[in-house]
Amino acid sequence: MKIALIQQPCEIDRNSNLQTATEAIHEAASLGAKLILLCELHTTRYFCQMEDPTNFDLAEPIPGPTSAQLGRLAAELQLVIVASLFERRAAGLYHNTAIVLEQNGHIAGRYRKMHIPDDPGYHEKYYFTPGDLGFGPIDTSAGRLGILVCWDQWFPEAARLMALAGAEILLFPTAIGWDLTDDAAERKRQQDAWITIQRAHAIANGIPLLTCNRTGFEPDPAGHGAGIRFWGSSFACGPQGELLAQASSDHAQILIAEIEDNRSERVRRIWPFLRDRRIDAYHGLLQRYRDDS
Amino acid sequence: MKIALIQQPCEIDRNSNLQTATEAIHEAASLGAKLILLCELHTTRYFCQMEDPTNFDLAEPIPGPTSAQLGRLAAELQLVIVASLFERRAAGLYHNTAIVLEQNGHIAGRYRKMHIPDDPGYHEKYYFTPGDLGFGPIDTSAGRLGILVCWDQWFPEAARLMALAGAEILLFPTAIGWDLTDDAAERKRQQDAWITIQRAHAIANGIPLLTCNRTGFEPDPAGHGAGIRFWGSSFACGPQGELLAQASSDHAQILIAEIEDNRSERVRRIWPFLRDRRIDAYHGLLQRYRDDS
Repeated sequence: MKIALIQQPCEIDRNSNLQTATEAIHEAASLGAKLILLCELHTTRYFCQMEDPTNFDLAEPIPGPTSAQLGRLAAELQLVIVASLFERRAAGLYHNTAIVLEQNGHIAGRYRKMHIPDDPGYHEKYYFTPGDLGFGPIDTSAGRLGILVCWDQWFPEAARLMALAGAEILLFPTAIGWDLTDDAAERKRQQDAWITIQRAHAIANGIPLLTCNRTGFEPDPAGHGAGIRFWGSSFACGPQGELLAQASSDHAQILIAEIEDNRSERVRRIWPFLRDRRIDAYHGLLQRYRDDS
Repeated sequence: MKIALIQQPCEIDRNSNLQTATEAIHEAASLGAKLILLCELHTTRYFCQMEDPTNFDLAEPIPGPTSAQLGRLAAELQLVIVASLFERRAAGLYHNTAIVLEQNGHIAGRYRKMHIPDDPGYHEKYYFTPGDLGFGPIDTSAGRLGILVCWDQWFPEAARLMALAGAEILLFPTAIGWDLTDDAAERKRQQDAWITIQRAHAIANGIPLLTCNRTGFEPDPAGHGAGIRFWGSSFACGPQGELLAQASSDHAQILIAEIEDNRSERVRRIWPFLRDRRIDAYHGLLQRYRDDS
């Protein structure tokens, strides 16, 4: 199966961002892609650089205008699209939500980001209520998709839970970048760590993984911070963590990769990790910390 | 703090293996190392290539001759040694056990390998009863050590549990190698995966990690398999997964690295993963698989 990651910079104007994505998806379809992954919050700038209540105006219901527009596109091109939206669920209740548009244009399912970051430049705890749907893969014509979002990628628990629930591919819409006040060595460590830990999720669970990040520089609208230089580098890897394709760090790109159907079955036979998990000794994973130790 | 990994090939003769390790530890001490990590089952060939009841003769009690010998060495050189032994606990009850020798020569603690592999060439379920001590770090003069053994390295749960119990460093005595009937691409994928997933444990938990593997070729004593070419490549990485030092894949080596004391504290402030774990939604980790999904 051919997949495509739509790595793009995001502008202030929603329609322009969706137009960019739509053109890229058309091109990906013409190249044979049957599964499309967009980057995190691809209809807007990364508005979480500052806390501003007017930004809640950017949220939309699901179903809503963007799910409808991308649903029509999925139906037109006969493929599956994984999109990432700022979901308005109720007044004062918002989520960072990924949705899947099926080939028939319908919403196959949604995932609400479970792990919410909050750091200088990434004020997500202000905007996003932590997800309450758990770690559930979504069945589609392109396989059972384990969709997680950005900060989730630092938590092996999230990937494992998706795999234990039968996910066949892990997918991560992402928005992560550099603080340019960090030196070059620190920037490289951060980017390497981001690649490494996601490849490790593929390895630990014996399934392929797709991650799609935005590119471009976005200034801090408040003028306090140095802004974020999103580092792109979207990639696809196989069930041994082997890189199948990787995008540049600094420009828009349609990254195509081929996911081999039976590779997970073969890899899990040589590395039968699921057989050997010590579930009798994992109860500590449900604790915040072992203060008694 | 300077640490040293003693990467070595292992011969049939126990005394020769211990002599090699002892000389290397003397040299590491002269270079300033305060914490020594030996490779898995460093007193013997990797006897698990075949199932043979006479191999249980290789096991020894703890305390026993090797713990006494290494304890004297630790006291003489005033450093901490992490060793890996085939433990005879009772008739018919054996473990793959790591022990820590303190600067005073005493045994500071032990860890019994929790995840036991079993694959062609690695018949460990025949020899080793799964550990029953859980994932408990061991307090030493060189810090609180989260010692895990080989196959444990493929399980993010193990590293996480050690970190949640306060481990300050993760340490992996290891015996892993290539089946030379695999092609070069497969061998590279396996070795890369082994490096990647361990670096990811450091990243996910914001702590440094040491892994020490044996080198050399050991034929299959039964003559069925192609033998194992142990791939060395022992390494030390920091809490962002950054490589601090890495050994060759094919010869004995004393690998020295410097572990920075306050780096975990700083890294966990910029990447506060422990803050954001969704312990309310992790109960599925205690399941073998979610068959209902």
